[in-house]
Amino acid sequence: MEGTMKVAVMEGIGKMGYTERPIPVPKDDEVLVKLEYVGICGSDMHYYEMGRIGDYVVEPPFVLGHEPGGTVVEAGRNVTHLKVGDRVALEPGKTCGKCKFCREGKYNLCPDVVFFATPPVDGVFQEYVAHEADLCFKLPDNVSTLEGALIEPLAVGFHAAKQGEAKAGQTAVVFGAGCIGLVSMMALKACGVSHVYVVDVMQKRLDKALELGADGVINGKEVDVLAKAKELTGGEGFDLAIETAGTEITTNQAIQVVRKGSNIVLVGYGKTGMMNMMMSLALDKEITFKTVFRYRHIYPMAIEAVAQGKVNLKGIATHIFHFDDIQTAMDRSVNEKAEIVKAVVKIAE
Amino acid sequence: MEGTMKVAVMEGIGKMGYTERPIPVPKDDEVLVKLEYVGICGSDMHYYEMGRIGDYVVEPPFVLGHEPGGTVVEAGRNVTHLKVGDRVALEPGKTCGKCKFCREGKYNLCPDVVFFATPPVDGVFQEYVAHEADLCFKLPDNVSTLEGALIEPLAVGFHAAKQGEAKAGQTAVVFGAGCIGLVSMMALKACGVSHVYVVDVMQKRLDKALELGADGVINGKEVDVLAKAKELTGGEGFDLAIETAGTEITTNQAIQVVRKGSNIVLVGYGKTGMMNMMMSLALDKEITFKTVFRYRHIYPMAIEAVAQGKVNLKGIATHIFHFDDIQTAMDRSVNEKAEIVKAVVKIAE
Amino acid sequence: MEGTMKVAVMEGIGKMGYTERPIPVPKDDEVLVKLEYVGICGSDMHYYEMGRIGDYVVEPPFVLGHEPGGTVVEAGRNVTHLKVGDRVALEPGKTCGKCKFCREGKYNLCPDVVFFATPPVDGVFQEYVAHEADLCFKLPDNVSTLEGALIEPLAVGFHAAKQGEAKAGQTAVVFGAGCIGLVSMMALKACGVSHVYVVDVMQKRLDKALELGADGVINGKEVDVLAKAKELTGGEGFDLAIETAGTEITTNQAIQVVRKGSNIVLVGYGKTGMMNMMMSLALDKEITFKTVFRYRHIYPMAIEAVAQGKVNLKGIATHIFHFDDIQTAMDRSVNEKAEIVKAVVKIAE
Amino acid sequence: MEGTMKVAVMEGIGKMGYTERPIPVPKDDEVLVKLEYVGICGSDMHYYEMGRIGDYVVEPPFVLGHEPGGTVVEAGRNVTHLKVGDRVALEPGKTCGKCKFCREGKYNLCPDVVFFATPPVDGVFQEYVAHEADLCFKLPDNVSTLEGALIEPLAVGFHAAKQGEAKAGQTAVVFGAGCIGLVSMMALKACGVSHVYVVDVMQKRLDKALELGADGVINGKEVDVLAKAKELTGGEGFDLAIETAGTEITTNQAIQVVRKGSNIVLVGYGKTGMMNMMMSLALDKEITFKTVFRYRHIYPMAIEAVAQGKVNLKGIATHIFHFDDIQTAMDRSVNEKAEIVKAVVKIAE
Repeated sequence: MEGTMKVAVMEGIGKMGYTERPIPVPKDDEVLVKLEYVGICGSDMHYYEMGRIGDYVVEPPFVLGHEPGGTVVEAGRNVTHLKVGDRVALEPGKTCGKCKFCREGKYNLCPDVVFFATPPVDGVFQEYVAHEADLCFKLPDNVSTLEGALIEPLAVGFHAAKQGEAKAGQTAVVFGAGCIGLVSMMALKACGVSHVYVVDVMQKRLDKALELGADGVINGKEVDVLAKAKELTGGEGFDLAIETAGTEITTNQAIQVVRKGSNIVLVGYGKTGMMNMMMSLALDKEITFKTVFRYRHIYPMAIEAVAQGKVNLKGIATHIFHFDDIQTAMDRSVNEKAEIVKAVVKIAE
Repeated sequence: MEGTMKVAVMEGIGKMGYTERPIPVPKDDEVLVKLEYVGICGSDMHYYEMGRIGDYVVEPPFVLGHEPGGTVVEAGRNVTHLKVGDRVALEPGKTCGKCKFCREGKYNLCPDVVFFATPPVDGVFQEYVAHEADLCFKLPDNVSTLEGALIEPLAVGFHAAKQGEAKAGQTAVVFGAGCIGLVSMMALKACGVSHVYVVDVMQKRLDKALELGADGVINGKEVDVLAKAKELTGGEGFDLAIETAGTEITTNQAIQVVRKGSNIVLVGYGKTGMMNMMMSLALDKEITFKTVFRYRHIYPMAIEAVAQGKVNLKGIATHIFHFDDIQTAMDRSVNEKAEIVKAVVKIAE
Repeated sequence: MEGTMKVAVMEGIGKMGYTERPIPVPKDDEVLVKLEYVGICGSDMHYYEMGRIGDYVVEPPFVLGHEPGGTVVEAGRNVTHLKVGDRVALEPGKTCGKCKFCREGKYNLCPDVVFFATPPVDGVFQEYVAHEADLCFKLPDNVSTLEGALIEPLAVGFHAAKQGEAKAGQTAVVFGAGCIGLVSMMALKACGVSHVYVVDVMQKRLDKALELGADGVINGKEVDVLAKAKELTGGEGFDLAIETAGTEITTNQAIQVVRKGSNIVLVGYGKTGMMNMMMSLALDKEITFKTVFRYRHIYPMAIEAVAQGKVNLKGIATHIFHFDDIQTAMDRSVNEKAEIVKAVVKIAE
Repeated sequence: MEGTMKVAVMEGIGKMGYTERPIPVPKDDEVLVKLEYVGICGSDMHYYEMGRIGDYVVEPPFVLGHEPGGTVVEAGRNVTHLKVGDRVALEPGKTCGKCKFCREGKYNLCPDVVFFATPPVDGVFQEYVAHEADLCFKLPDNVSTLEGALIEPLAVGFHAAKQGEAKAGQTAVVFGAGCIGLVSMMALKACGVSHVYVVDVMQKRLDKALELGADGVINGKEVDVLAKAKELTGGEGFDLAIETAGTEITTNQAIQVVRKGSNIVLVGYGKTGMMNMMMSLALDKEITFKTVFRYRHIYPMAIEAVAQGKVNLKGIATHIFHFDDIQTAMDRSVNEKAEIVKAVVKIAE
């Protein structure tokens, strides 16, 4: 497809703009996707506010956005499983396929991954993208491209549930009711976990958790989390905890409220890189800490879960912005974190 | 509780009768349960027809029945988690707690287990039973004692699902749509498995499978199972198979229809003890065969799944017989296997 | 066996004494063991110095010691696998066999465990003990009762190796070359791990590690641990780390020197109960943290490993004290931690 | 490297010959290896005798041989981890890196694998081969290229041990003392298994097993295997069995001699593709059957095990033939199966 496309670029800290670039040409193994929705992730906001995450530094103009859904408009000659018109969710990380991690099936740890919106690799706040066809997953008729965009955060939730070895019959707790906490809660339910409780300090978020299927919520500002956990579990403690808030308070609450021998999955990053943890208690309880870095092998099953109505992804998308309003979209995402569970940019119909 | 109770006994092959025995006195760690429903299992029928299963030989008078639900009417002095009036499901096997298997958590393999209705241990087609309180699991308000009785076969289904490492996102197949096939299908769904198909040769059973939630069925008499499996899985094969029919045909179909690297769970016993299997194909596909002997650590989670409406146990109980009609109950169970998914004896209201 | 026996008691902080008590009478499931060697553990020293560990408070007179080896001198009537004259290692924790943890095979987490030398349960610095026969493991001819006593710390090392899923072909690192670090190193080697390196800041301990089979050592005072780790692993990082020193420095070194996706096993307790850890880095590397509380199902395999010469337990026992010198034994153990890898009290020949 | 090389070809059933072909030119990611030793595998013999294995049919002239060791003589421009002069073992299967199996880390199940000496892909009974550098593993100084060639069968043994979850402290049994049985036995020992017994009906092979480190042997022609197994395991049964003989007798012996809840690893292919197995007994014992198709992720750890002296690969190579005598090598391998554990063709010094 010839011509140019509109691209939203971060021009500096707190400053978005637009530019025109050539529509990319898909290689033999790629498809060209007309993007319809792209979610705004916490990392996008962090780059926008700070200009960097750790060693990853934005050099403007830089394209943010790595949660895309769209429609195939052109397919490379080697592509057989997709055709023009297919609606797809795009897994944003292209891995080498040859390193030890790729060969062992842990491709999310590939050191040579090329991941959308991770400097210096541009993201996808733009009208088109050419992407490896194997990373584009066809959506069933009853799954929209808006939901397709949100498969990305949902994948983190499912990976957290899998890392924690979530299983039918358990009673679990999720700390944090932001986007990742909510998708983790829904992923746990989809894995058959019997009861999932959500802890946060903002009632609005907890109401959202209840709306999306949490079996109960704990407002850490209003009740004693430890006492409430004891009550909810008959004194036994939770079978599994997923921590998405990234604070020492919630991480140590997790250690205190799980039962002996259980798993805690750490998903949330703290502000300083360090976390002061009650490790003697953790040893006494012989707790296992699993951690989460992105996800692997999740897209097909996550799409399936949405198609089957096990996960309510639409309920996550509380705010939808037009592509023309991307400056507003970014600013409000940053300034109204408490209000906005997930903002999505609508690139096209 | 003083007095005597009515006990149904197998007096010989194909012959049931009744006797009176003293109501048992619960020990300090036991409860006395007034039984309300007891399911008739395939092994009960087998003893009734043949007088033996392998080395286990019935010496009449012998009491059959090991799938009981009822209400606590007396509690031993050390019992704290149950009280009079609690409705319970009874796990039928009492294990030693000291052998290598018990210590390693695989108590279902305990060589010293005392299991209801396994000669010479009597079963529970009777009005009362004294049973270890730790093996009596309280039913929530929305789970009936009829369902409580059927937790036993459901436990086999859940153990099969767990042995097979069933997980969200998979497409599974169950061979056999008898009671165990159906509970396995429901257990897989409760574990988050995305699609479960059921294979049988009797349409009536397959209709029941659909009624209880199967995503599709395959009538092996009418369609080519291998071709249909290919179609249903896009040529990839099923991620998991559970075999409950106990035939060479279905076992070898399982080997043929699963994808490489997958698990097949063998639950059904064959008639001869031997099974002629396509093992070279199994090696080429690097299939793992898991087997199932009863279950372990399942009762609480199975009860929970029923309480949450994830498993429709009532739908299994196609035939309910009065305690006075136990001869009929046994005869019809034996003679109408195609019709009767699960017969249950109603001991009391 | 009638009569009295000599018992060493802690009479107060830093003060040992002796008393006479009746020789215990073994119950039907117990054996009476004449003790020959009992090791002095870090927890014994801690009680001796501080009078408490967390909520466990010593009420004098209290008997320390939980690492015993001896000879059966009397067997209860139900005991079949042991006879008078058998030399045994005694696993010090008697568990309930009925709780959820026991039933699931994680008996080390039993809340009702009765464990030698954990207040208010007395230990075994005494001439005889009656102990559950199932917890007394017969020693082969080529394993001495001195080694039998040291099976207890070795069990911690093997449990750490198992928790870390140690396997053939790996390159591992152990932080801390005290008793637990050394037995962990030997356990890793016995599990087939290809290369095990040991990190400490005391050269004397590192020399001992080399003597006992470490493939190399790193003196953290003299070389840059991170650089050395990089060099030793060709830049890839260790496949597995076991942390036994209980310091933030070594815990964070562990996080830095393992490869992505690997396991870190935390065994050492810190001084404050808290540990300030580089968790963002741990998340980026998707590290799993396993923890260790005592051990389970280890005694038979640990004894076997010693019998086969895979573990040099005698090399651990650097100091042997006579029972009459227990005050000296405790004082020197406390004051010469750098010198003494493991002190053992010789109760009798 | 210009010029031609000598290639041994199978010209028909039972007929070997030689031809000259151009020395291959390595691609950018490949190395050119001057071959020194190539082992003769059972599948080579099978193709030689029968002209086919299942659907794989030899079209002469065809090159057999897939167990190579040699020295790098040229390296493609992208190759960084190997240089001219490095001695290497060559993993014979090149996989796609993109299919579901490759992505999940089970590359041995890749449907698009290109594997030496599997029709229509030629093998390596020839002087040179160009092979993907990532599949060429550098040998340490103390591992010869003869041993390098035999890493291939050893990899099967290690994969069997890993599939069986072999671990320190176990007592295992291996059925069959041919090449694969012997390497399985040695792999088990290298994984820390305490005792490994080997069953065969030919004393000569059993003597070899003892020479290579088996803890004991059972001659099935002379003693009752079941009774002997009972004696050796104190009545408990083996913790793990590896079956390499591919017969119904040995497979059913395995089912009978393992303890409840254990793993049996099936490696040997039967003659007919079918195996009539005691599956009711297997269900009663809740046995897991793992199967083995080639191997994955084994080469580096297998080379390491040889380098550390844990595996005696030289002892396997009972017969070495000159490249000029390949007809004899094949004929004798086929005709003297009882005598020849492993024949190796010496291509060059």
